[in-house]
Amino acid sequence: MGKVRFEISMSLDGFIAGPNASLEQPLGEGGEGLHEWGVRLASWRRLHGLEGGETGADDDMLEESFATAGATIMGRRMFSGGEGPWEDDPRRDGWWGDEPPFHTPVFILTHHAREPQQMEGGTSFTFVTEGIEAALEQARAAAGEKDVAVGGGASIARQCLEAGLLDELTIHLVPVLLGGGVRLFEGIDPAKVELEPVRVIDSPGVTHLTFRAAR
Amino acid sequence: MGKVRFEISMSLDGFIAGPNASLEQPLGEGGEGLHEWGVRLASWRRLHGLEGGETGADDDMLEESFATAGATIMGRRMFSGGEGPWEDDPRRDGWWGDEPPFHTPVFILTHHAREPQQMEGGTSFTFVTEGIEAALEQARAAAGEKDVAVGGGASIARQCLEAGLLDELTIHLVPVLLGGGVRLFEGIDPAKVELEPVRVIDSPGVTHLTFRAAR
Repeated sequence: MGKVRFEISMSLDGFIAGPNASLEQPLGEGGEGLHEWGVRLASWRRLHGLEGGETGADDDMLEESFATAGATIMGRRMFSGGEGPWEDDPRRDGWWGDEPPFHTPVFILTHHAREPQQMEGGTSFTFVTEGIEAALEQARAAAGEKDVAVGGGASIARQCLEAGLLDELTIHLVPVLLGGGVRLFEGIDPAKVELEPVRVIDSPGVTHLTFRAAR
Repeated sequence: MGKVRFEISMSLDGFIAGPNASLEQPLGEGGEGLHEWGVRLASWRRLHGLEGGETGADDDMLEESFATAGATIMGRRMFSGGEGPWEDDPRRDGWWGDEPPFHTPVFILTHHAREPQQMEGGTSFTFVTEGIEAALEQARAAAGEKDVAVGGGASIARQCLEAGLLDELTIHLVPVLLGGGVRLFEGIDPAKVELEPVRVIDSPGVTHLTFRAAR
């Protein structure tokens, strides 16, 4: 059975999105800067249907991460930016386009039931209303021997960490300060989380820190 | 002329002290855990008048840091825990003992004037009431060719960063979560700070991240 893992880019002051996030600017002010190290890589570009891009240690790591993911879990807000009934959601089909970059079954945690949807390029969207553990069970079954990637956002990652559902956490630490926005670890109960460092990959412009989460 | 530098241990969730700090527990709940990697090292122990301790990459780094520091700046609260007039401060002579671990001239930023004090082992305490730039000027003169170490706390480090007074920042990132306390970057204006990574040293239990601060 594969791992359940979560990886995310975080600023040195602990933010995964900048201040004043909106539908137009979902990563908030300065938030795009957290992902610059990734979007220029060949593996990222290929997943998004683009050619070219940089290769090297960062790219190898991202490539491995994509290759080993057999299913993805994400929150409703990460899927579409919305929270209420689907008919009221301006992005009800998500903002990931006809060929989303996941290329795996994706399980979306939501309070509002909806039929599953098959997309191009191997991505499917399944909407789970029974909570994180049910979503994880379905994702594990879909992933088979591969890993389940927790796609985010921060709240789902924290739920998984506190509930002991996560095997591995990777933080792509980016040397910028955002000064406000969404903190990865906001309100987490430290007594419920134990992290053991397993790997550090140091690149210019980003340091990748991987931890094993004790269950 | 040496550098002006600041180094500090920080939790993965961005805290340099845990919640509920007090005179009895100045690092707050869980805060001692941030410094475990350091206190077991030979260089740290020697500075504190103790024998033995671990050697290796961490120790070499700390040894170099101690050896290159020619003067230290710190805030009043870091010196004694107090803020008001000296006569009301229960720790008016600081909590650093007769032979403080700095072994350099130390310049303490305070609103309350006081005569300088010579301690054992090369540490002296000079109290500066004219603000951070004046303290830095005196510290630079005292350090000569060596570095000025900004000792803390977080507020002074932020002031130095925002004012472009810092050359180098080292964060000893410790894989624990504190969930509350004093954040290193609380309230910082990101527009005033630019950090360029210069060195990563990865050890079991701590990752040392050094940045050059653009002035």
